[in-house]
Amino acid sequence: MTAPGKTGVAIIGSGPSGLLLGHLLRAAGIECVIIERQAPDYVLGRIRAGVLETVTTDLLRQLGIDQRMNAEGLIEDGFNLADGEQLIRIDIRKLTGKHVTVYGQTEVTRDLMEAAPARGLEIVCEAKDVALHDLESDAPSVTYLKDGVEHRLHAEFIAGCDGFHGASRKSIPAAKVREFERVYPFGWLGILADVPPCHSELIYSNSDRGFALASMRSSTRSRYYIQVPLTERIEDWPEERLWDELALRFDPISQHKVVRGPALEMSIAPLRSYVFETMRHGRLFLAGDAAHIVPPTGAKGLNLAASDVLYLSEALIAHFASADEHALLAYEKRALARIWKAERFSWSLTKLMHRFPEDGAFERRMQIAELDYLAGSTAMQTAIAENYVGLPL
Amino acid sequence: MTAPGKTGVAIIGSGPSGLLLGHLLRAAGIECVIIERQAPDYVLGRIRAGVLETVTTDLLRQLGIDQRMNAEGLIEDGFNLADGEQLIRIDIRKLTGKHVTVYGQTEVTRDLMEAAPARGLEIVCEAKDVALHDLESDAPSVTYLKDGVEHRLHAEFIAGCDGFHGASRKSIPAAKVREFERVYPFGWLGILADVPPCHSELIYSNSDRGFALASMRSSTRSRYYIQVPLTERIEDWPEERLWDELALRFDPISQHKVVRGPALEMSIAPLRSYVFETMRHGRLFLAGDAAHIVPPTGAKGLNLAASDVLYLSEALIAHFASADEHALLAYEKRALARIWKAERFSWSLTKLMHRFPEDGAFERRMQIAELDYLAGSTAMQTAIAENYVGLPL
Repeated sequence: MTAPGKTGVAIIGSGPSGLLLGHLLRAAGIECVIIERQAPDYVLGRIRAGVLETVTTDLLRQLGIDQRMNAEGLIEDGFNLADGEQLIRIDIRKLTGKHVTVYGQTEVTRDLMEAAPARGLEIVCEAKDVALHDLESDAPSVTYLKDGVEHRLHAEFIAGCDGFHGASRKSIPAAKVREFERVYPFGWLGILADVPPCHSELIYSNSDRGFALASMRSSTRSRYYIQVPLTERIEDWPEERLWDELALRFDPISQHKVVRGPALEMSIAPLRSYVFETMRHGRLFLAGDAAHIVPPTGAKGLNLAASDVLYLSEALIAHFASADEHALLAYEKRALARIWKAERFSWSLTKLMHRFPEDGAFERRMQIAELDYLAGSTAMQTAIAENYVGLPL
Repeated sequence: MTAPGKTGVAIIGSGPSGLLLGHLLRAAGIECVIIERQAPDYVLGRIRAGVLETVTTDLLRQLGIDQRMNAEGLIEDGFNLADGEQLIRIDIRKLTGKHVTVYGQTEVTRDLMEAAPARGLEIVCEAKDVALHDLESDAPSVTYLKDGVEHRLHAEFIAGCDGFHGASRKSIPAAKVREFERVYPFGWLGILADVPPCHSELIYSNSDRGFALASMRSSTRSRYYIQVPLTERIEDWPEERLWDELALRFDPISQHKVVRGPALEMSIAPLRSYVFETMRHGRLFLAGDAAHIVPPTGAKGLNLAASDVLYLSEALIAHFASADEHALLAYEKRALARIWKAERFSWSLTKLMHRFPEDGAFERRMQIAELDYLAGSTAMQTAIAENYVGLPL
């Protein structure tokens, strides 16, 4: 074992949560180190959502890590909900004065990673067997194996930004926590391809064939999803079968016909709502997917991680500046208030737009009635829009 | 059997739907007769909701049957949703420019009944064995037994306003209809008493003890409800037990403590969402509870009957004036568009405010998050308010 290192904040995980937190702390002059289990290429290979709230873009601008986002990101002033062939446009610019930015999570991660060295943000990659120690003492530490050598990093605080499957959440004793979960009876089959999108704005569609989403990462890269039963396997879906299905769903309602191209990626992901309470255990704070998962409907996952990290950075900076314990104590409550509202929005949009095997004809009519009501109600459109662009911090 | 009578419209049922329709048709000079199975005292003994939308009060004003409602009805500018001890006031006046009027359905029925003779609106009461005939011909008729004698009334049209258990809906062949239904896993135990209400505006409360509603019929008559399992019997609830329960629910959140008094009525009613499609079969048109039921949450039942009857009266009046078949053909579509939206509102408010035995901790947190979001969102409050005062005709 090498001689132990020491830092202000040990950040577990180099996804967008960990990287954003690291940059925010470094910008305030706080020492921190990111410990990442995987190699950088693995982290950058993850395909995730790509709709950023202003909460997220503001953070990137504040950090000055926004050049590529400004150049390549698509400003979106609205999105669409479709019930069969009725397209309901939610004019988020008009209704809220705000917009969202389409810019892939992969690109955000890359930009944050590339900016790290120049800003003195150290990232230890391929750190195996990450373990957290002495969280309830005032001398917590993280151990990991790197190139066959065990390392120990002491820190004043540890930030668990290592996602749903990471070590951080699992370090909190079961007796101190409460878990809330809903697993949905279907998954999203997604395809990413370098073809122009069929519509200039996202379309969430609830048709007799099930849910489908037409989205994009840029003006030349499309991302489509359809709802599939959990029993479905990716082998069941040759690319042409999926393109046929997407054409059936979107050709009647989109500006352009669905353009086909070779898949850059295809996968089936389950849908889950999950909240872990507590977000703090002694010197450990959780942020992002380590503490909560939303179904991808409404694209809240990354944006919720950004608000967690903003709150956590403010609390840690206040503590390092003036030993202010109040900010640390307030973190969980502040974060959870926004998390639960985003969980609600993601859950309710999922329920509105998907076909649930357990639903009967009455529940289907409730979906139709809600979309019909929404089509004619400025108030309800505003409610959807204000959630979509992100509720106030 | 007596010699057959003849009229323009035979109206089955002398509840508010049938009476309102009869008055609207008479005001346009159309001959009609109401056939009622029960005695007037029985009809007036039914305790129902008491919150009138302007759709309903406008109709009563237009008919000039509004003197007592104007004198005794309470104008309500808001109502409240409560989550535990947090009272969320929905300021319907500020949010929609409209209000609702608290005036019991029993009083509306009485006013309409008392105005009938002077306006030439004939009501045949205690008509037994009501049956509808030849609905698909151009000579439909209604038969009934009155004082032991069988009568037959020929009419150009028949209006089925005889509620959920009436003969009209059952006269439509099963092959021509589709039913949509949701039965809820609880009922409402209600008490009516001549005591001042505990709060000047309605309170819908979702507490750890279940749903409860504090409402009133006037400034001296209160109407309270609590959610009870369907297995509960009225014998399980001595008045004092219910008052104790109501005090526990409302004393912490209402303006005044719950005042107790002898029950004028106590009953347990199941909650149901139900829509019957079609609303027309040949010369028969359905309106109100004969075609649809909403759970009482949000008080949409009577108001939905009023809009049905308004649409139906306009269609019939247009037909009698100019043999305009279009209006008759459009009735069902026009009515159903509003019915489904009201069904959605009643269903969603029921889901938000009740404890469902099948719900887990995650679903409970969704209720809390929705109420928390609602408390801070003008857009969502406006959406609730515009449904509560009644969507546009």
